[in-house]
Amino acid sequence: MEQVTIIGSGHMARAIAVRMLAARHSVQILGRNGEKTRELVESLGAGAQGGGEGAAVEGGIVFLAVPYGEGRNTVLVYGEALAGKVIVDISNPVDLAGFDRLLVPAGTSAVEEIARHASPDAHVVKAFNTCFAKPLEAGSVAGLPLDVFIAGDSEQAKVKVSAVVAASGLRPIDVGPLRRARELEAMMLLVMGLQASPNQDNFNWDTSLKLLP
Amino acid sequence: MEQVTIIGSGHMARAIAVRMLAARHSVQILGRNGEKTRELVESLGAGAQGGGEGAAVEGGIVFLAVPYGEGRNTVLVYGEALAGKVIVDISNPVDLAGFDRLLVPAGTSAVEEIARHASPDAHVVKAFNTCFAKPLEAGSVAGLPLDVFIAGDSEQAKVKVSAVVAASGLRPIDVGPLRRARELEAMMLLVMGLQASPNQDNFNWDTSLKLLP
Repeated sequence: MEQVTIIGSGHMARAIAVRMLAARHSVQILGRNGEKTRELVESLGAGAQGGGEGAAVEGGIVFLAVPYGEGRNTVLVYGEALAGKVIVDISNPVDLAGFDRLLVPAGTSAVEEIARHASPDAHVVKAFNTCFAKPLEAGSVAGLPLDVFIAGDSEQAKVKVSAVVAASGLRPIDVGPLRRARELEAMMLLVMGLQASPNQDNFNWDTSLKLLP
Repeated sequence: MEQVTIIGSGHMARAIAVRMLAARHSVQILGRNGEKTRELVESLGAGAQGGGEGAAVEGGIVFLAVPYGEGRNTVLVYGEALAGKVIVDISNPVDLAGFDRLLVPAGTSAVEEIARHASPDAHVVKAFNTCFAKPLEAGSVAGLPLDVFIAGDSEQAKVKVSAVVAASGLRPIDVGPLRRARELEAMMLLVMGLQASPNQDNFNWDTSLKLLP
């Protein structure tokens, strides 16, 4: 049983919390919006507790369940409070006006940007960016466990994240070093473009990317 | 019923041919290696015929079932014989020594390179690059039809390719303009890296990438 911290109080914060609680991990939700955070913690029930931005970080794994652009600020605000922690960036730096480009320069990724601004003693990992809240909360799609692609430069950090992912009923896939997040983020430009397209009836904001068999 | 041409005589040529024949399309195989081409055509049976490099191209859709690097030469060799045709590039420009980088510069893709060298009257489409030969020949994975992601700048060409893909029991997904191939090719750097990794028992050269549900 692990203690995890989730920074954020939106749909992805909820979905990750539900999966972690399903694995009997305890969950700390740290949200800037006090009312939303309280509501989320109450709806999650036993095993969840809440706090405001800047509260003591209790989890060994810290999920940044915030939109792209806020992740960098979040690691700056928490600073050395994240030293020794595993930080999980789930964001997709996709230009939502047009879904035609990424908001990070070629040859880098959102998570590498976050790693450059995080405590040098934190271990930054990319994971969950291909998961959307609804299927993630359910934990499975088409009767199969969701795939969670994990990129990172710390093997130990990836082992930790893989363990909580597997315990929560999902399939962890270690895709290699942190720079592989470039491909994970690129793919989501394409997937989110499909979801946003009025021509694509089959793809709404609830798809899952799976590697079969 | 459509006439398609497949340039190449390897595993992917066979797999595409099997699917096209399943849809009762007729298939022309054009291979540089006469013996391999003959063997493939014979094993495919009724509906398939063969020819050498440079033979008259009979299909309205032409699959370049050749490795990355040969596609450009192929469109140069065939030149104006491909005018008016839909050319389908299936290649993955992945550095097989290390699986750590693409062989095309950032901001472009293998298929865009091919389009620059093809007859200006050809319509170039990216498709099938996320499909591997074994599941493609089978047509399904885990009881589900394979996804075929299709990128291209000609709507008419994508409609044509989508039609033969759907008729052959697969699911066509139009992912937008040709430049979306950048993301499709990037994702396969990651997937092929998993397949090549000795640490990944679950991923051999027979995975399929699917967007669920």
